[in-house]
Amino acid sequence: MNASEKPPIPQLSDMQSSLDQRQLAIQRVGIKHVRYPMTWLAQEQRQATVGVWNFYVALPATQKGTHMSRFIAILQEHTDLAGAAADWSVAQLHSLGAEVLARLQTEEAQIEVSFPLFLRKQAPVTGVASLMDYQLTWTVLAKSGQPSELRLQVLVPVTSLCPCSRDVADYGAHNQRSHVTVSLTLADLSLNPETVIRAVEKQASSELYGLLKRPDEKFITEYAYDHPKFVEDLVRDVALALQQLPGAQKIVVEAENFESIHNHSAFARLEL
Amino acid sequence: MNASEKPPIPQLSDMQSSLDQRQLAIQRVGIKHVRYPMTWLAQEQRQATVGVWNFYVALPATQKGTHMSRFIAILQEHTDLAGAAADWSVAQLHSLGAEVLARLQTEEAQIEVSFPLFLRKQAPVTGVASLMDYQLTWTVLAKSGQPSELRLQVLVPVTSLCPCSRDVADYGAHNQRSHVTVSLTLADLSLNPETVIRAVEKQASSELYGLLKRPDEKFITEYAYDHPKFVEDLVRDVALALQQLPGAQKIVVEAENFESIHNHSAFARLEL
Amino acid sequence: MNASEKPPIPQLSDMQSSLDQRQLAIQRVGIKHVRYPMTWLAQEQRQATVGVWNFYVALPATQKGTHMSRFIAILQEHTDLAGAAADWSVAQLHSLGAEVLARLQTEEAQIEVSFPLFLRKQAPVTGVASLMDYQLTWTVLAKSGQPSELRLQVLVPVTSLCPCSRDVADYGAHNQRSHVTVSLTLADLSLNPETVIRAVEKQASSELYGLLKRPDEKFITEYAYDHPKFVEDLVRDVALALQQLPGAQKIVVEAENFESIHNHSAFARLEL
Amino acid sequence: MNASEKPPIPQLSDMQSSLDQRQLAIQRVGIKHVRYPMTWLAQEQRQATVGVWNFYVALPATQKGTHMSRFIAILQEHTDLAGAAADWSVAQLHSLGAEVLARLQTEEAQIEVSFPLFLRKQAPVTGVASLMDYQLTWTVLAKSGQPSELRLQVLVPVTSLCPCSRDVADYGAHNQRSHVTVSLTLADLSLNPETVIRAVEKQASSELYGLLKRPDEKFITEYAYDHPKFVEDLVRDVALALQQLPGAQKIVVEAENFESIHNHSAFARLEL
Repeated sequence: MNASEKPPIPQLSDMQSSLDQRQLAIQRVGIKHVRYPMTWLAQEQRQATVGVWNFYVALPATQKGTHMSRFIAILQEHTDLAGAAADWSVAQLHSLGAEVLARLQTEEAQIEVSFPLFLRKQAPVTGVASLMDYQLTWTVLAKSGQPSELRLQVLVPVTSLCPCSRDVADYGAHNQRSHVTVSLTLADLSLNPETVIRAVEKQASSELYGLLKRPDEKFITEYAYDHPKFVEDLVRDVALALQQLPGAQKIVVEAENFESIHNHSAFARLEL
Repeated sequence: MNASEKPPIPQLSDMQSSLDQRQLAIQRVGIKHVRYPMTWLAQEQRQATVGVWNFYVALPATQKGTHMSRFIAILQEHTDLAGAAADWSVAQLHSLGAEVLARLQTEEAQIEVSFPLFLRKQAPVTGVASLMDYQLTWTVLAKSGQPSELRLQVLVPVTSLCPCSRDVADYGAHNQRSHVTVSLTLADLSLNPETVIRAVEKQASSELYGLLKRPDEKFITEYAYDHPKFVEDLVRDVALALQQLPGAQKIVVEAENFESIHNHSAFARLEL
Repeated sequence: MNASEKPPIPQLSDMQSSLDQRQLAIQRVGIKHVRYPMTWLAQEQRQATVGVWNFYVALPATQKGTHMSRFIAILQEHTDLAGAAADWSVAQLHSLGAEVLARLQTEEAQIEVSFPLFLRKQAPVTGVASLMDYQLTWTVLAKSGQPSELRLQVLVPVTSLCPCSRDVADYGAHNQRSHVTVSLTLADLSLNPETVIRAVEKQASSELYGLLKRPDEKFITEYAYDHPKFVEDLVRDVALALQQLPGAQKIVVEAENFESIHNHSAFARLEL
Repeated sequence: MNASEKPPIPQLSDMQSSLDQRQLAIQRVGIKHVRYPMTWLAQEQRQATVGVWNFYVALPATQKGTHMSRFIAILQEHTDLAGAAADWSVAQLHSLGAEVLARLQTEEAQIEVSFPLFLRKQAPVTGVASLMDYQLTWTVLAKSGQPSELRLQVLVPVTSLCPCSRDVADYGAHNQRSHVTVSLTLADLSLNPETVIRAVEKQASSELYGLLKRPDEKFITEYAYDHPKFVEDLVRDVALALQQLPGAQKIVVEAENFESIHNHSAFARLEL
């Protein structure tokens, strides 16, 4: 096709940095749902996992566009450095904020990565070991000239047992899987996701396990019956427990109970 | 752009009916995930709902392509006829098979529609009413010169209570929401989804309700404790119950228990 | 089981209104993911659809729990009044805020309902008709002694065509389906979702249709090529268009392009 | 609680191996959606990823239940052997069939694992590197006394460009992301997923990349315009290409085009 025959459009060379006339700043622009292999420096050991990344920057009203491909370039450099999968830790995620600000030549950036973390747990009576999976989502909020803010979100699946059902019934009590999702800002980078997960699990009617034998199942069944919790109790007790963790700030707790007697959920959200 | 400057491609007029040289028949080709409003002629009354449709035909090895737009045209005609939302019943779905064969000039077609059906249920003790939602999926298999086959799939959410947990524990028993998904061919078009749903629910540790008061919660908690079922029991008992329904053929039963003590499901599948 | 043998728990009569010792208010507590049939009073006609509802109230620090079952009771009353499916309109949703405050005896409530709205569209050249589906989410924010705030979110699927690809290539340009999600507060209840949808669609590289014939496909292909938009352009142009709508306040625009040349999305978010 | 006060139930000791009276065999029973970290021995290097596992056995009509916990025990043993994440390869997956048969003392088992595989790709003109993710699902079908059957399913995201749109329009052509999902039985364990992926990508209008610069975007845009494909062409051309791969048997090809001009997909399925 001859250029003369194409409908006229502005030349795109340097389009991203050209002046935009609409006078509207964009709070977030970037790429979403990029899957990359990674290893996570967990408390006990280095762990193979897969991250889903979002990278955003803020765009001033005068600027036409951002440089989307640089986000992938950064991710790829970290991966190449480490071989097959990039190594990430709390500290490395935190420093990614400044790296994105510099490479994208921007004043503000937000980076999110979500991946499953696996903890080795032992069954409460027999001690048989298995892994439990917890979905972590880290958010790095970077502003030029300020230290980056690092937020952690963890989804912790637990059992909740209904106090009302237990109270009214002569025997039994309905219970179900629940998702407790907590998010907090790390004032201290030494606060581990593992510590947060354990603090949440202790407040549930029972924690979950990959592998249980009969004596464990007996223990857990009775333990849950002895620790009934409404969804309101769950979010309050978890919030109180997280308040005790040094370095945990701006705490938000949500709980969703996939009710075993209804086809809908009970839900609560508490912001400290 | 001048046609002469475009890279040469075959003229598309009648492309769909042109001869394909690759000598490969295609078993299914069509459109997927079309959302349309509909009313469903339920046992008790006409019900507002939303259908997600798939339309496929078989394509002989010699034929290049199918007429995708005709599927939407058919759906739209049914909708226009009825005003805001097409009226559908078991009989109308069944006759849709022949309509698609004729309009697409094909020997074989498959039409699928999935929508929530709502049943008005009364709580077991107080009798308070609420709706429960069940996901239906109908499949019409049409072949030229044969009566269409109509298959029904229903997802029935129920409670399952673990016999092992009940047996080993001094008190309580873990239970959870389970999805029982049954599919069957209707040898008799008078077999209602409502009848299938009730047959499934009776085999569960307990059925679910939208609305329960305390006396109902007591009843259901104790009922579930009195009717413990492994996932193996669930699929076997449901299969036996469906076998008793006149007109139910080629029965398949699946059950998935969203275990309240694990972060994974127990699952079973039984084909009669 | 004798009461004496059960582990001691507080009597649950009036548990919900009993005094909580943890001194933590809960911002939102209620039920989530309740599916109910409904009819929506659309601009042109009454429309069959299915709503997914969330109902929440705020709980003061001193109160132990809320009355979950009352949410379903309210929904059921509206459904019974109307027969098979509750009738809802912008005005009825708005007044639901006060109803929930009164029935739950609370100072603050949030109600959300999400459902597909269908618009009858005519293809741009041939005029053939079909329905397009748009996901609406309404949020009612009710506070005692204040008028309720009503927010509308609409997901509008469109085509986006990449200006850079068009500029650098001698022929063709990559394009893809994009989701433009806008949310706004209705200062004036006469602002229609239909008006919002049309305002969004006009800013896309092209709008979408259920049914197109060849002359329509030619028109749309060329129209998109003549209206290339980066994701940054999309959110800015949509924001400017919504700013012109009387009654639209607190406007937020998001766009996600499911890039046809990558396996990830381009994304932007603009808050006015 | 005294045993005398509990409603009578059969003792569960050896319940799983007790005789079932319902005379119904169960084709599949086991566990579903177990997430575990793993490393995959890819063609080029060992790769960190996360697997989602299903384990099923067949249950004879006379047997009451299976031993659910043994599945997790097997998975955990492989993980402990390797440290933080189990090492898996085609050969190790294949031999897992016999292991499950032996440990579960059963005649038939089915094991499924799904995980993302990442390939390092170079952009077509500039050669810049990035990773692309492909979802693999392996199925091991094991029967006592027979060699296990190993099936591979791969989801390959590609670009499809519509020949009709290109033909009718004076300029441009609508295109979109498509998912080509192929499954095949490995008659020869040396057939690599990487080989299958490359065979699929070559038949698309264009393959996808994580990272592209402008010369690459020009190349890909023009390449797609030069290689228009209907969904029917995609499945036929991919089927022909897979037929050429030594060791590929029982080939099934599906393609779903997320149409950029509609809000639904075009779909085709071809079984060789």
